[in-house]
Order: sequence, then C-alpha cells, then structure tokens
Amino acid sequence: MTTIKLGMVGLGTVGQGVLKMVQQHADKISAVTGCQVVVKTVMVRHPERHQDVAGVVHLTTELADILADPEIQLVVEVMGGIHPAKEVIEQLLRAKKHVVSANKDLIATYGRELNQLAQENHCDLRYEASVAGGIPILRAIADSFAADQITAVKGIVNGTTNYILTQMGQQHWSYEDALKQAQRLGFAEADPTNDVTGKDAAYKMIILSQFSFGSSLPLGAFAVTGIDQVAAADVAQAANFGYVLKLIGDARLVDDRLFIEVAPTLVEQGHPLATVNNENNAVMVTGQAVGDTLFYGPGAGGLPTATSVLSDITTVIKNLVLKTTGNRFNRYRKALAPASPATVADRYYLSLTMPDRPGEMMKLTAAMAKGGASFSQIVQQAAVGGQARVMIITHQMSKAQLATLAAELAATETIRLNCAYKVIE
Amino acid sequence: MTTIKLGMVGLGTVGQGVLKMVQQHADKISAVTGCQVVVKTVMVRHPERHQDVAGVVHLTTELADILADPEIQLVVEVMGGIHPAKEVIEQLLRAKKHVVSANKDLIATYGRELNQLAQENHCDLRYEASVAGGIPILRAIADSFAADQITAVKGIVNGTTNYILTQMGQQHWSYEDALKQAQRLGFAEADPTNDVTGKDAAYKMIILSQFSFGSSLPLGAFAVTGIDQVAAADVAQAANFGYVLKLIGDARLVDDRLFIEVAPTLVEQGHPLATVNNENNAVMVTGQAVGDTLFYGPGAGGLPTATSVLSDITTVIKNLVLKTTGNRFNRYRKALAPASPATVADRYYLSLTMPDRPGEMMKLTAAMAKGGASFSQIVQQAAVGGQARVMIITHQMSKAQLATLAAELAATETIRLNCAYKVIE
Repeated sequence: MTTIKLGMVGLGTVGQGVLKMVQQHADKISAVTGCQVVVKTVMVRHPERHQDVAGVVHLTTELADILADPEIQLVVEVMGGIHPAKEVIEQLLRAKKHVVSANKDLIATYGRELNQLAQENHCDLRYEASVAGGIPILRAIADSFAADQITAVKGIVNGTTNYILTQMGQQHWSYEDALKQAQRLGFAEADPTNDVTGKDAAYKMIILSQFSFGSSLPLGAFAVTGIDQVAAADVAQAANFGYVLKLIGDARLVDDRLFIEVAPTLVEQGHPLATVNNENNAVMVTGQAVGDTLFYGPGAGGLPTATSVLSDITTVIKNLVLKTTGNRFNRYRKALAPASPATVADRYYLSLTMPDRPGEMMKLTAAMAKGGASFSQIVQQAAVGGQARVMIITHQMSKAQLATLAAELAATETIRLNCAYKVIE
Repeated sequence: MTTIKLGMVGLGTVGQGVLKMVQQHADKISAVTGCQVVVKTVMVRHPERHQDVAGVVHLTTELADILADPEIQLVVEVMGGIHPAKEVIEQLLRAKKHVVSANKDLIATYGRELNQLAQENHCDLRYEASVAGGIPILRAIADSFAADQITAVKGIVNGTTNYILTQMGQQHWSYEDALKQAQRLGFAEADPTNDVTGKDAAYKMIILSQFSFGSSLPLGAFAVTGIDQVAAADVAQAANFGYVLKLIGDARLVDDRLFIEVAPTLVEQGHPLATVNNENNAVMVTGQAVGDTLFYGPGAGGLPTATSVLSDITTVIKNLVLKTTGNRFNRYRKALAPASPATVADRYYLSLTMPDRPGEMMKLTAAMAKGGASFSQIVQQAAVGGQARVMIITHQMSKAQLATLAAELAATETIRLNCAYKVIE
C-alpha cells in the first residue's frame, strides 16, 4: 500500500486533532483512500512544548525541513492568522506542495491570489475547515449545488457569539455575564474582539459568498454589527414576540446584485436556525431549484475542525492517486455589483426609549410614516423614571427606508432608537 | 467547449425537473464543468404525452436508441421501481454508459451487484437523489466524513409521513384526516402503503447505513414500524411531555455491531430534528470526531430531487474530463454483525389503557419492575368508561427488557400496551 507523508505547520488545538485522527482512524482512511497516511514533520515555534509527540513525528522550527523534503507532498497549515501564514503557504505552493488550510482570516483576505498561485503550480489548495468547523459546507456548495443557482446563504457561523446569545436567552444573563461564563468554559478567548464584533463571521461570509455566488465583497465593503451592544431586555422581548436573537451572516442576491451583512437578527422560533444553540453553527443554503437546505454541526473545536481538514486531505490523496491535482476547490466565478440599500427589504425589530407622556407616540407614528414603515406588533413596557421602552416588529422595509426612519427619530430629540434588528421567518 | 449528451429513461416529476434544470441553468453548469450539457434522447412509454418537449429532445420508446448511440455517454434513470429499472441499468452499464439514478428501492435492494457491474465496466454509478431528495447526504458521508468513524445516522427520511405527523401535531387531526389532506395536496400518493408502513424510509436507511458503516442489513432483517397506527392522543401527550412525534430511521453501531430500525419516535422539542416539519427531511450524522451534524432540506419534489441528480451528473462529467470514471460512489466496506436486542438501550414512551380501579397501578409497577424498567414521567388521564389512559416516559431500557415488559403487561390481561415509542433527546 502506498504511504502518503504529510507535513504540518502549527500544532494547536486543530493540529493536535488532525494528528490524533490520522493515528486513530488509520484503518478507515486506508479503506477509503487505498493509502496509508502518516504525519512526518511538524513545524512549531516551541518544540519543547510538544515532547509528547516527539517520538511520533519530526518536530522542527524550520519550514525548510518541510519545503526541501521530497517525501512530503501535502502540507496542513493550522497556524492561523494572516501573517506569516500567507508567506508560509506561498512558499509551500512554490515548492509544489499541496496545501490544506483551516485559516478563514487568510482565505477571506487573500483567497483569490493564493488560489491563483496554487493553479500556477498545479497544486491543490483546499480549506473546508475555514468555515463552520466540522460542517462540510464549502464542499456541499461547490459539488452538490453545482448545477443550481444559489440565491441566498445565511447562518450562524460563529460559535462564541452563539454560545453567548444562547446563554443570554436561556439564563436571562447580561452580555457581560454571558461573555465571562463563555471565557471561563473556553467558548470565548481572553480577547474575544474578533468574535463579538462580528469580524470572524464576516470572514466566513466572504468565503461562503465566493462559493455560493462566484463573487464576494471585501471586509469593509459591507455592514458588520457584533453582539457587544445587545441588551438583555431585547433578547427577552424577542422571546415574547416569538423569536430568538442570533448573530446571522446573511449573503443574498438582490436583483442580480450581491448583498452581504453580519448583524444580530431575530429568528422565528419555528425556523430551523432557531434551535441552533450554544457553540453550534448552521448554514442555510437556498437554491432556485432545491429550495431551503440547512447544514448543522459543531462550528469549532479541535476534533470537529480536524474532521474537515481530514476530508480535504483524503480528497487531495484521491487526486494524487488519480493524478488529478491542480483543480480549483471552487470553480464558480461571476462578476456581481453590490446591491443598493434601496433594494434590500426586510422586516425589523425596533427597540425605542421615549418619554411616557402625551404626544410622543404620535411623533413615533409620524416618523414611521415618513420612513414608509408600518408595524405588525408593538409592545410598550411600564415607564421607568418617566421613560417608556417601546418594541416594534415592522412590516418589510428597505435599508434606505430604515435610514430615513432612524434620521426622523433622531430629529424628534426625545425618542431614542436603541437598536434595529432584522427579522427572519 | 465540449458538449456532453445525456440520455434519460423516464420523464415523470423528477425527469421533467432534470430537463428543466439542464436548460435553465446551462450557464452555471458550463461555468462549473467547462462543458455544455444537453439532453439528447429520452425513453418514455407514451411519447404522445410529452409532445411539449418533442422539439427539444428525441423521444423514443426503445432503450436500444440510447444503448446504440455512441454520442450518449451518460444516462439518467428516473423511471423508478425495481423492475424493469434493474434490467435497464444493467444493459446501460454493459453498453459502457455511466448511470445516474434516483431509485432508492432498486439501490437498497440490488445496490451491491449494480455497483459491482459498474466497476466491471469501468463506469460511474451514482445515486445521491435516492436518499432525502435535495439533501446531499450520501456525498457528505462518503467525502466529508471519509476519515471519521461514524457511530450513528438517524433522521426523517420520508416526506409523506413527516407531513402527516406534522399536521396531526399542529392541527390535532387523526391519522386518517391528515392522510386525506396529504393526498389532496399531493404530499401522499393514492396508494400510500410504501410510505406510511415505513418501507420507503427503510430503503433509505439501508443505503445510509451502507455509506456510514460500510455495511447494511437487508429489508426484513430489521424492525420497521409505520405511522398508520399512531393515535392522535399519543401525539398530543408527546407534546405535553415536551416532545414531537416523528418517524425516525435509526442506524447505529452498538458494541461494534449494526442496529437499524424505522419507528415512530418521540423527539425532544429542542432537538434539531424536532423543527423539521411538513414534507422536509433531515439526517443527523454522528461521528466519533465531528460529533453531531445535521443535514436538512426538501425530501422530495421534482426540482429538489433533480438538483441531486444534477450534482451527480456534474461529478460524472468532471470524471469524464479528467478521465477518472469507474470509481465507486462509496468505497467504504466493513463486515458487521447485527446487534443483539439485549444491547440496544433507549428511553421509551409507553401508552397504556387500564381499568381505573384499585390494584391496577400496582400490577403496572410490578410488571415494570420485572422488565427492569423505571419511569421518569407519568400521566394518568381521566377514565372514560372505566378505562384510564396512562402515559409513561421510562429511563433507559434494552429491547430485551421492553419485550419482557410487554409480555408481563399482556399477562395482566387488564393492562393494554397501546404503543411503545423510542425517545430521543
């Protein structure tokens, strides 16, 4: 039986998961690929910290040990971050090594040029693990919906924020308390900025959009709102209205143009995304022919993410055996302009604070009329210190109408718009 | 650009969906495969009924027109049923045509020998559409979890029964009324036997088991219970206990042996399978490394099923271009013995009818003690005509214990066990 020797760059949680799976599932991998797979060399910064695996793999601090080794045809990049991961992958591809990566930041930012470089060197570059951990979503979009026109891809693609929002909903905790709990249990990092501001989810939506629509928008070119301003009162009111608050990445075609957004969103309780709790992820893909499909699973964690890395490894090995390496992971390309705010329509949840006195509600309805907004549900909570909290679910309105409404409300000087969250049914 | 010409056998709902997609999504198919795809010849029994497409494709009643046509490399079988579909596919494979099929009955029954014949003729044989319509579940198991050890695959794999059970739950209808409604709306056939007895779901579980565990059991070698005996009272009581009643196909490894079952099952309301309503399907795959993943989507219908057929077509075309046809759809094979009933443990929902008089509850608890069963929830409903209805959720017990309990209850002669449904959390 042919033996395929792997290199690895990085040996954190995911890297250790990959090493473990290659060893523990060796029989199944052989049964499926017809090859024996072993990890030969692992590049790490601090070999002294990984002495537990020193007898099994060759630990090195030098990338050259992998680059110059003709036995190593395939290298797994699990170091994370944009630099020097980008330079590492470039060197690997130039050395004609096939690459499997789990690096969303990097692929979202430099995916196009790295794919180009892979093609030029007739190498495979695959990165299933970069989006939604153990969920095989990129492969599903690229292979299974190859002949369908995808019109929308949306979902819960960040485990940390979903854990926090789940706890806020179920335990009635504040954002701060839920974050602390998540950090204590290891579901949030000491510096959770990339997660709670929505940046991590934005990276994943960039990659999902490229696969779904053949086109994407760069970070900065679409709205990204995190969960760090979410109030416990709005989570509770969402539940009273029959919704669950989730951080939703939303990419869709609107009049043949591309719209992407990451924002806290109210999801109706019967919707398949509503039962996705804690650190789990789920992506809903809507195709013209297939309709709504949903892919659910663990969004992070060493072994789940390693499963996706291994699925890429077995595909590259299959390509090596069949001599069909060098084809793009995602071959769909289509030029799309960004959608205009006037054309993107949704229902909204509005949370307002206003003085509890005659005339204020009339100001509100006047502002809504100017914005062209109408409501389907409204609740006013008992005033505290003369200030009442009013929550509304609107009928469909465009981003442009929402902006007009926000400006009209600001002009009242007495009504404060605490938040405006999209609603999906 | 190379043109790939397809043959088709059958032109029902799915066949018409395939024809429509090949025409309407021609641009995307070309972008992804690099080939132009056209349907050249369609074999049908009654060409006069398909005159709307007579200008676009060549209609024939003779399979020979496809077999003898060297331009046709790939044929889609969407005629359904076991005979003569089996003989048709055999002739196609012997004529070195690649085959894409949507035929679950056939693949579940003769998959092994048809795969063998495909290999001998160096042909592709793919059948993603045979399980769960538009959900790309077979490919996900074969490709994405290739390196993981799957320990369980379970789900809702029949749209008709899920539609009926959803209506029974939401509208509080009887089975008979819900079935009539499903037939009126086209979600159930005039003769719904294969669906409501669980046979259709059993076919799909046979295929899912083969992909997940490398092994399966034939129809008749595992328990299949349909929904035709489900009482509205039990659907309502399940809801009161916090569960939804679903027809669940359940295949899992128990002590390295294979267990398969199709049966009405109580699913906890927060479980991802609980929100799968109406004609939708969902399959949960549990892997040792990845944990729980779920794939959700439309389980039937012309266009969703056609999407899966088209995903197979694009894969075969890719293989044709790369000259890598002739590899098995699912390469995983492993010999597994069936699990013994004593080792398969679950919680159960028991529905009992018993005389409302002193001593009966003691008989019940005595029978449960003999069966080694204990309960976590119990409800007694007001007696009607002296007969009380008692519903119980048990702690974990084995199939063997359940059989003992059923025998003990029968021996009381006064307590009737209306049903015993598994519970999943």
